Amino acid sequence: MRDLRALSLKLVDGQLLILDQQMLPDNEVWIGVENPDHMIQIIKDLKVRGAPLIGVAAGLSLALWSQKKPKLPAFLQEAEKLREARPTAVNLMYAIDRLIEIAESSDANPEAILQTAFAIYDEDVNLCEKMALRGATLISDGDHILTHCNTGGLATVGVGTALGAIIRAHDSGKQIHVYVDETRPLLQGGRLTTYELEKAKVPYTLICDNMAATLMKQSKVHKVFVGADRIAANGDFANKIGTYSLAVLADFHKVPFYILAPQTTVDIHCPNGDGILIEERKGSEVRGVFTREGEIRWAPEAAPVFNPAFDVTPGKLVTGMVIDDQLFSRGQLMDHQLAKFL
Amino acid sequence: MRDLRALSLKLVDGQLLILDQQMLPDNEVWIGVENPDHMIQIIKDLKVRGAPLIGVAAGLSLALWSQKKPKLPAFLQEAEKLREARPTAVNLMYAIDRLIEIAESSDANPEAILQTAFAIYDEDVNLCEKMALRGATLISDGDHILTHCNTGGLATVGVGTALGAIIRAHDSGKQIHVYVDETRPLLQGGRLTTYELEKAKVPYTLICDNMAATLMKQSKVHKVFVGADRIAANGDFANKIGTYSLAVLADFHKVPFYILAPQTTVDIHCPNGDGILIEERKGSEVRGVFTREGEIRWAPEAAPVFNPAFDVTPGKLVTGMVIDDQLFSRGQLMDHQLAKFL
Repeated sequence: MRDLRALSLKLVDGQLLILDQQMLPDNEVWIGVENPDHMIQIIKDLKVRGAPLIGVAAGLSLALWSQKKPKLPAFLQEAEKLREARPTAVNLMYAIDRLIEIAESSDANPEAILQTAFAIYDEDVNLCEKMALRGATLISDGDHILTHCNTGGLATVGVGTALGAIIRAHDSGKQIHVYVDETRPLLQGGRLTTYELEKAKVPYTLICDNMAATLMKQSKVHKVFVGADRIAANGDFANKIGTYSLAVLADFHKVPFYILAPQTTVDIHCPNGDGILIEERKGSEVRGVFTREGEIRWAPEAAPVFNPAFDVTPGKLVTGMVIDDQLFSRGQLMDHQLAKFL
Repeated sequence: MRDLRALSLKLVDGQLLILDQQMLPDNEVWIGVENPDHMIQIIKDLKVRGAPLIGVAAGLSLALWSQKKPKLPAFLQEAEKLREARPTAVNLMYAIDRLIEIAESSDANPEAILQTAFAIYDEDVNLCEKMALRGATLISDGDHILTHCNTGGLATVGVGTALGAIIRAHDSGKQIHVYVDETRPLLQGGRLTTYELEKAKVPYTLICDNMAATLMKQSKVHKVFVGADRIAANGDFANKIGTYSLAVLADFHKVPFYILAPQTTVDIHCPNGDGILIEERKGSEVRGVFTREGEIRWAPEAAPVFNPAFDVTPGKLVTGMVIDDQLFSRGQLMDHQLAKFL
């Protein structure tokens, strides 16, 4: 069996290992995944996060378990349980559905299932690499890049999307500096992007989200690079809350604003951003913070809260959008080139 | 002796009491101030905050101690120690200097000193009231107001500045709703403004700073009300970090943006915002959060951080500025009317 080594997932001598993201950045604790039920618990405990990463990890746990040669009905039952571990994660459903398909067509042939799980892994690595290399061409020597949330190797099994481009630009010898939005309320920037940049030895500075405007005013931000969770046909897109704010600030300060995302993020049946539903999360996330030590609250216990997980940015505020290895300019987005490309 | 009852300072039967702001919003703990040395410790422990409030509290502690009839040199020595308790607090120096002046001219007459301390208290109450009532005229029935940081009765002994206007508008029967920026890194919005609005029974919603843009896009914010720490002659002003970001977002979404501050905030010798020096605070504030339970860190231990305490907003982004009971429009600010007024 192949070994795999990603930033937050490993397969060594047939043992699947997941980096516990809740222990980051201070402690690198690897969890040995025992079986799909254990994987479900790891997903539910948020020890693994990032839509592509969850899909690959769940797929591998199922494929490894299938090496015990369960009958097809048993396999399908286990697959269905995994599929339900996080109902909103599209990549999870996609990965499990592919394994179900191959299991049904091969009468649960273990080798066919395993090879499909490896293929899903390889596809994510290759897709990240494509996006990152295309995105890196937009970064010049000396650039200061602002990024939001976490879009790197802790969200995928490859180098990531927006953060991947930043890391590949650095790897190619460009002298760059990264400003990292801490990304309230869940602090993926402060906890995870900082960790990845330290690992990759990319110079960075951590800021609170409300400090980005001051850096732009002082001409210290040359470009903004972010990911996307869902892109409408006209280039409007949903991403982590705080992205729209950055887009407006970048527009005001004439700072180029780039998005990197895989083709699977584009929802061509969604004509514009108005059609994108935004999940509201629980108030306790805004009333305080979740830490390794548990939940800390600083606001009044019953404080009414608005806590949208994402916001929607109009395509007209985008300088360029890298979809796989293709760059769409603002003009091309406005000209509905996305729909023609897919 | 008079009794005094402010939101976070009381004088009852000659006993000065300070509300411990570090215990808010959950616990209302009143500290009996024993003497000026005890007051210095309370200031240094950040149990009392807000420039006007610190000045009034320190002045009262000194005046009460002077009732024991110390000789002038002993009084001056104690005054000097209080003056140094927080070197950057202009109001503190102003209050102590006034008490020193009256002590020197009256040979430390206890009654004269006490009456001066009461006068400083009354002036803050009256000035807040003036600003709040003028500001409240800018708020319409049905308005949704966004505010940042804490500018109320926990920063002054009166109703406050920007938050004072909001509370007075509510008191006058206008149906309003307040969106409260949590105000990273020190969370004065999440901890203190929420507490004050609950006390005043004003409906509010707490948000993370990066969510304000989405509310504006959804037309849910009708006006922005904030305070100011220092105002230049041309209307540029410094305020809590995050204010400039709000000003740009308000400009983009055509949301009126108002400042409330006392005349003492205007530095007429400072021609524009470029002359305002911005204090940078310690990185640990951004790497985590300070709570009642101590310091919590979530970012890497040595994460490089940018942590400006304030930012500078150009006067051209201001719709109106209430200075004491006078309103200056953007046009008047641009026409240098501030300098002519003072």
